[in-house]
Amino acid sequence: MNIIILEGPNLNLLGTRKPEVYGNKTLHDNHMYLESIAKELNCKIYFKQSNHEGALIDAIHESRNKYDFIIINAGAYTHTSIAIRDAIEAVEVPCIEVHISNIYAREDFRHISLLAPVCVGQICGLGYLGYEMALRYINLQLGKEIK
Amino acid sequence: MNIIILEGPNLNLLGTRKPEVYGNKTLHDNHMYLESIAKELNCKIYFKQSNHEGALIDAIHESRNKYDFIIINAGAYTHTSIAIRDAIEAVEVPCIEVHISNIYAREDFRHISLLAPVCVGQICGLGYLGYEMALRYINLQLGKEIK
Amino acid sequence: MNIIILEGPNLNLLGTRKPEVYGNKTLHDNHMYLESIAKELNCKIYFKQSNHEGALIDAIHESRNKYDFIIINAGAYTHTSIAIRDAIEAVEVPCIEVHISNIYAREDFRHISLLAPVCVGQICGLGYLGYEMALRYINLQLGKEIK
Amino acid sequence: MNIIILEGPNLNLLGTRKPEVYGNKTLHDNHMYLESIAKELNCKIYFKQSNHEGALIDAIHESRNKYDFIIINAGAYTHTSIAIRDAIEAVEVPCIEVHISNIYAREDFRHISLLAPVCVGQICGLGYLGYEMALRYINLQLGKEIK
Amino acid sequence: MNIIILEGPNLNLLGTRKPEVYGNKTLHDNHMYLESIAKELNCKIYFKQSNHEGALIDAIHESRNKYDFIIINAGAYTHTSIAIRDAIEAVEVPCIEVHISNIYAREDFRHISLLAPVCVGQICGLGYLGYEMALRYINLQLGKEIK
Amino acid sequence: MNIIILEGPNLNLLGTRKPEVYGNKTLHDNHMYLESIAKELNCKIYFKQSNHEGALIDAIHESRNKYDFIIINAGAYTHTSIAIRDAIEAVEVPCIEVHISNIYAREDFRHISLLAPVCVGQICGLGYLGYEMALRYINLQLGKEIK
Amino acid sequence: MNIIILEGPNLNLLGTRKPEVYGNKTLHDNHMYLESIAKELNCKIYFKQSNHEGALIDAIHESRNKYDFIIINAGAYTHTSIAIRDAIEAVEVPCIEVHISNIYAREDFRHISLLAPVCVGQICGLGYLGYEMALRYINLQLGKEIK
Amino acid sequence: MNIIILEGPNLNLLGTRKPEVYGNKTLHDNHMYLESIAKELNCKIYFKQSNHEGALIDAIHESRNKYDFIIINAGAYTHTSIAIRDAIEAVEVPCIEVHISNIYAREDFRHISLLAPVCVGQICGLGYLGYEMALRYINLQLGKEIK
Amino acid sequence: MNIIILEGPNLNLLGTRKPEVYGNKTLHDNHMYLESIAKELNCKIYFKQSNHEGALIDAIHESRNKYDFIIINAGAYTHTSIAIRDAIEAVEVPCIEVHISNIYAREDFRHISLLAPVCVGQICGLGYLGYEMALRYINLQLGKEIK
Amino acid sequence: MNIIILEGPNLNLLGTRKPEVYGNKTLHDNHMYLESIAKELNCKIYFKQSNHEGALIDAIHESRNKYDFIIINAGAYTHTSIAIRDAIEAVEVPCIEVHISNIYAREDFRHISLLAPVCVGQICGLGYLGYEMALRYINLQLGKEIK
Amino acid sequence: MNIIILEGPNLNLLGTRKPEVYGNKTLHDNHMYLESIAKELNCKIYFKQSNHEGALIDAIHESRNKYDFIIINAGAYTHTSIAIRDAIEAVEVPCIEVHISNIYAREDFRHISLLAPVCVGQICGLGYLGYEMALRYINLQLGKEIK
Amino acid sequence: MNIIILEGPNLNLLGTRKPEVYGNKTLHDNHMYLESIAKELNCKIYFKQSNHEGALIDAIHESRNKYDFIIINAGAYTHTSIAIRDAIEAVEVPCIEVHISNIYAREDFRHISLLAPVCVGQICGLGYLGYEMALRYINLQLGKEIK
Repeated sequence: MNIIILEGPNLNLLGTRKPEVYGNKTLHDNHMYLESIAKELNCKIYFKQSNHEGALIDAIHESRNKYDFIIINAGAYTHTSIAIRDAIEAVEVPCIEVHISNIYAREDFRHISLLAPVCVGQICGLGYLGYEMALRYINLQLGKEIK
Repeated sequence: MNIIILEGPNLNLLGTRKPEVYGNKTLHDNHMYLESIAKELNCKIYFKQSNHEGALIDAIHESRNKYDFIIINAGAYTHTSIAIRDAIEAVEVPCIEVHISNIYAREDFRHISLLAPVCVGQICGLGYLGYEMALRYINLQLGKEIK
Repeated sequence: MNIIILEGPNLNLLGTRKPEVYGNKTLHDNHMYLESIAKELNCKIYFKQSNHEGALIDAIHESRNKYDFIIINAGAYTHTSIAIRDAIEAVEVPCIEVHISNIYAREDFRHISLLAPVCVGQICGLGYLGYEMALRYINLQLGKEIK
Repeated sequence: MNIIILEGPNLNLLGTRKPEVYGNKTLHDNHMYLESIAKELNCKIYFKQSNHEGALIDAIHESRNKYDFIIINAGAYTHTSIAIRDAIEAVEVPCIEVHISNIYAREDFRHISLLAPVCVGQICGLGYLGYEMALRYINLQLGKEIK
Repeated sequence: MNIIILEGPNLNLLGTRKPEVYGNKTLHDNHMYLESIAKELNCKIYFKQSNHEGALIDAIHESRNKYDFIIINAGAYTHTSIAIRDAIEAVEVPCIEVHISNIYAREDFRHISLLAPVCVGQICGLGYLGYEMALRYINLQLGKEIK
Repeated sequence: MNIIILEGPNLNLLGTRKPEVYGNKTLHDNHMYLESIAKELNCKIYFKQSNHEGALIDAIHESRNKYDFIIINAGAYTHTSIAIRDAIEAVEVPCIEVHISNIYAREDFRHISLLAPVCVGQICGLGYLGYEMALRYINLQLGKEIK
Repeated sequence: MNIIILEGPNLNLLGTRKPEVYGNKTLHDNHMYLESIAKELNCKIYFKQSNHEGALIDAIHESRNKYDFIIINAGAYTHTSIAIRDAIEAVEVPCIEVHISNIYAREDFRHISLLAPVCVGQICGLGYLGYEMALRYINLQLGKEIK
Repeated sequence: MNIIILEGPNLNLLGTRKPEVYGNKTLHDNHMYLESIAKELNCKIYFKQSNHEGALIDAIHESRNKYDFIIINAGAYTHTSIAIRDAIEAVEVPCIEVHISNIYAREDFRHISLLAPVCVGQICGLGYLGYEMALRYINLQLGKEIK
Repeated sequence: MNIIILEGPNLNLLGTRKPEVYGNKTLHDNHMYLESIAKELNCKIYFKQSNHEGALIDAIHESRNKYDFIIINAGAYTHTSIAIRDAIEAVEVPCIEVHISNIYAREDFRHISLLAPVCVGQICGLGYLGYEMALRYINLQLGKEIK
Repeated sequence: MNIIILEGPNLNLLGTRKPEVYGNKTLHDNHMYLESIAKELNCKIYFKQSNHEGALIDAIHESRNKYDFIIINAGAYTHTSIAIRDAIEAVEVPCIEVHISNIYAREDFRHISLLAPVCVGQICGLGYLGYEMALRYINLQLGKEIK
Repeated sequence: MNIIILEGPNLNLLGTRKPEVYGNKTLHDNHMYLESIAKELNCKIYFKQSNHEGALIDAIHESRNKYDFIIINAGAYTHTSIAIRDAIEAVEVPCIEVHISNIYAREDFRHISLLAPVCVGQICGLGYLGYEMALRYINLQLGKEIK
Repeated sequence: MNIIILEGPNLNLLGTRKPEVYGNKTLHDNHMYLESIAKELNCKIYFKQSNHEGALIDAIHESRNKYDFIIINAGAYTHTSIAIRDAIEAVEVPCIEVHISNIYAREDFRHISLLAPVCVGQICGLGYLGYEMALRYINLQLGKEIK
């Protein structure tokens, strides 16, 4: 089971940007943590962070035939990028949307996700543990399908 | 650790209503499944389902001093009840919102949750496994706080 | 042929509330009249009036396997209750929406029915005779299906 | 008792257009059916179908002093014609609006009827039986007034 | 100086429709009155009333090279007809919009005139005297231009 | 002079919910205080608090022929309940709307009261003293009418 | 017959401001012209121009019992002043609204007149001749009423 | 205890404007009545009415260090004046907004008060007694603070 | 291969109306040009221009079983006629929408085509060559289907 | 080079109103500072502050033929006064809009300036230094034009 | 004659993404086809596809002095990119917008093209043949201009 | 003192794009001019122009610990990029937004800046001198803070 975790603009600043909203662990710390969960769940995870909308689209395209699931936190592109939405819909790899903060408790323009309607589901507000929950869900879900 | 799982209108029909959207397990089946997870996580869970907005408010009020966390799926009241929102905000018991289906892939009027801004976070689209993920998150989160 | 007639908030005041809008017959007078029509049509009708949204939802749930058709006048909940809409959609008993007054000739907020899209059709502005027309339609319609 | 049944654009295609929405009886079939109902009710009915907004207005004007009631299905003009609305309001012949399909279960732009506020009431979604129900209502209503 | 007075849907009912809004003189009475004013002003006036949008457009087209000015009261088409607007703009005969009633004191949908932006100006609320005022203005205006 | 004071959802939490907004006196404390005012004004007051929309409607219905005035703080139902509005309008007992906090200084969705248009007036932002002011107003007003 | 002509902000600049929109005659030139028309019509006219909203309101108040009609061009306050609207409505002196330019052919925010609904009617786009037309209308109208 | 009562545009017409909405007592009558209440409450009140937005702002500025409370009925400026709102917020003298009529039962544009969010609270619909209630509230409130 | 070219209101003025927008060739010139293209493509074309909405609907109805394709430029009815839309959808003859000017570079109300969603596609801004392109597309497309 | 600096409502409170937003220097302090800058730049500056919309319009009118440039901070009238906008546009003296605070980081109703479209440009959020920057810009700009 | 064909995000997936919407030919297949058309028309075509908004802007910039025409299908950036719009407008190379699918028959957010107003015209819904039609139009148009 | 000047899409075309809006100096000319100002003010300035949203985000991230201030003209991304806004907010380097043209005098979609609320302030409409003004402001402001 191969899973790609895509992270969008400004997530590279994790741990230094608004720690009261996003926590004070760095992106690398979090990746290490998720690696340990992945090991426990016996699946392989890969990471791609970019501030470039086009680069995220390229990465989604490349996931076809390579990954079983996408976990995406598209950051601010969540609210503005029809192009990323189209990419997710086009590749037909199942995708879960994760947000570290509770986007519904913040500014109005963060309340609408253009990606949500083409994803399996959304997890938000659970901090970086949201990624872990996505991994555990995928594990259970794919496990079921395999059985 | 005591957790109350509140379920709103029409969730009593689970397993018989639109199985392609909500799955074909009954509410009781799902409660049994969650009980097994709770046992694994060493926490106690309680259930309350009602089709009455007022009854859900009463149940939220009663959760003060009794439960450590609320998991709520307020069904259609999610989109119309400021009264339930006020109740959640008032009791100050942390709360996670769960939806079985991906509300963002359905009718427009299901895209706005009045409850989300006063909850810790939201999980939707993961079927009844969303409740499990909420339980696992609470377990990890409260575990951390205790440490 | 069994038909349940559900009536929502404030309809218990019929005959005393705004007689220029709703007529001056009481709810009981009207029920008597409909009983006589039902007898003529050789069908059985049942009544349930409640001011409680949850009670109406409960009643809709109970109509499964018990009634062939629902006639509903949800009163003000027509314009605010997604929960009743979900209930109607869930039980899959065919349903006709009736309004005594012409809701399109009144305040703007009465122009939108959340229930209409999940009902077979709507009759409004014909006073209590609207219920009779619903009964006659059901009689013809079910008659056809039986043949 | 004389009643004019006005039918607007595209209703001449009845029976051939989207039979899953409008049924597969032709306009003529339906007129025959209504004639038989009218005979039963002892009233006279007349028909006018036109695809021209102006022709429908002319027909409404001519109904003064000639008909006791108008039954109108203005088709798509329902949603766009203030001129037909003004005509109905001006002639002061009571009018019932009928739609074969449930307009509230279709595209958004079919949810607003410009005519409804100046009609006695509206019947929709009951197929061509909606016209029969309008006839029966008029019969009962005028009967009452005569008594 | 030749002037065409175009009148739209339902204006043929003048004198019989809502006399408290439109006065109780008939269209013919008013035409006679305007003829007397025209004689005084030494100009020729012509009338065209139609309930058909297309007929009004045809009439506007015919006014090219034939009339010096158009006075138009498009009735309800004022608020819905881009086609009449285009016709006025296309023929480049100067045009004054007149309304008998004060359209700004009535329903919201009567507050927007699609024609106003392509007319010289608008007179409303002055009853049928508004047409007289339009004639007098044209007389003064064309008089000036000739000088 | 008999007056009913109706209080809606979450008001039972008074004194414990957001004391910086609603003060720290309990509902019972406040009732005691109002009783003392009522005694001074020589009128009788009754209380009904409920978290159930339907129960509030029932209570309004019961006020007919029993109370001279209603003082209502419908809490969050103020902003969502057309059914309570209809009940107030139907019973024709004069009604004053009271809010403890200044609803216009809070979230946007609290700025619209569906009840205000059918009440005599509204008092908000004066804390629990707002109820006292309502009582004093009623006392003066009814006094005048009696004279 | 006494008539007050009220002119609002920036009209004192007439003849120097955007002559292509408002013409190149000064306010004084226009007043002289209107005086000559008034003499012909045998009525007295008075003028008041101010850039101050409050001064216009004061002037409207003073028109009670002093003038038979108000002609008002409130300039930009047309689109923003509910206070002037209230003043017109309160004094109950009949009022005609005039605009020199065609406000419907300019910026969107000039398309809504807050004053129009409380005036007898509106004349716009006829240049300063619009005032003359208002005078002539008043003359005819009052003449009729006298007769 | 010194209190200034500010009254905005058209309130000088009180007693003569729409008596069915605003009562038939003049502004002076009402001031006399309030003086008698103030005497009873042992506080001093001052009055300022103006139709000029700027004059109201000046008066608010002058209230600093001079008055303990402002009672304001800004009339139509309530709905349009951000400048008055800023003045109230800037001087930091507590302020209660009063309206004689129930602004929520009138035209839509009267439903939004720009001032309410920066006032302590609002009283509307209680006629001129609303001012009395404001005085009594201030008396109780300041009394409490002094104690 | 038979193709009908339908042209709506004001297109008869082609060559004389706003030549900078629509070019200075007359409708007849353009028809001649298209005839020459049709000859080249070996297909038959027919023309129908009308300023009457109803006449266009009639023409669409008549195209069933007679034409293989419709090319429609409905002029201003593009933006207002649900009735024409319904006609196109009902007859199920494939249809291409053409506009001579770039409707997206003009007034806002020309940006929405009610017809586009029920057409195969849209060509706009290419002048009368847009019709040629439609013909060539149909030729290629039908050619393919035949093969 | 003569420059007028116009300041609108509540700016006279500078230094005492919300010092965290507007700084704690008084209007006089700031004028002194700007005088020193003007001396350095060899230009003459004049000041006019008023809380009256009409007085600001009068002042703008007077600037014709007297000043080379206007610097305006219209305070709250920025967002509500079409009349001031018209005055600026009419006098054709170039104008720069300045705001002390960042209006885009405050309440929504402060995000729209009605004046900006008729000004040369806008400077906001730079405190009272914004005025200095406006002066320096004018100095450079007029210098260029002179050369 | 040199023409650049620019293609935006996700178009590289052509032939594999939603074949029922976009057809099942790959981007390369289509390029081959267009090359054959270009050869027939005696013009040179160049291709650039990118998922990066910035890369498309760069490509548009480079088209100055190099290409006679741009054919652009900006994919999802059509609906979100003001930057691409500005680039097209800035380089002043004439541009035709093409969409393979009928964007007006899909989701609401695909109905608005930010690019259309700065292009010569738009072709949509004709599949990849839309590009051919654009080429043929350019050929005819440039041919004319050359003559 | 180190300052980075970031310039977004299409600004590389400066001097060649719409010179009537943006002037006819090239980007390089302007950079030279600003260098001379920087020398005068004794500060160092750096430049980065890119048409890529992601590249601008990367550049903002790099400004942490390296620059004292950012001057940004994000071009069209001003109106669409929440990602750039987040970057500015995240790095906590103070930032001034500059626009060469008066964005409030252009198309509606240029009136909203997503960046303004997270910047210190905004300067627009002053041409390239706006950048100079930003530099001078920073110089004064940082100078003050140092003192």
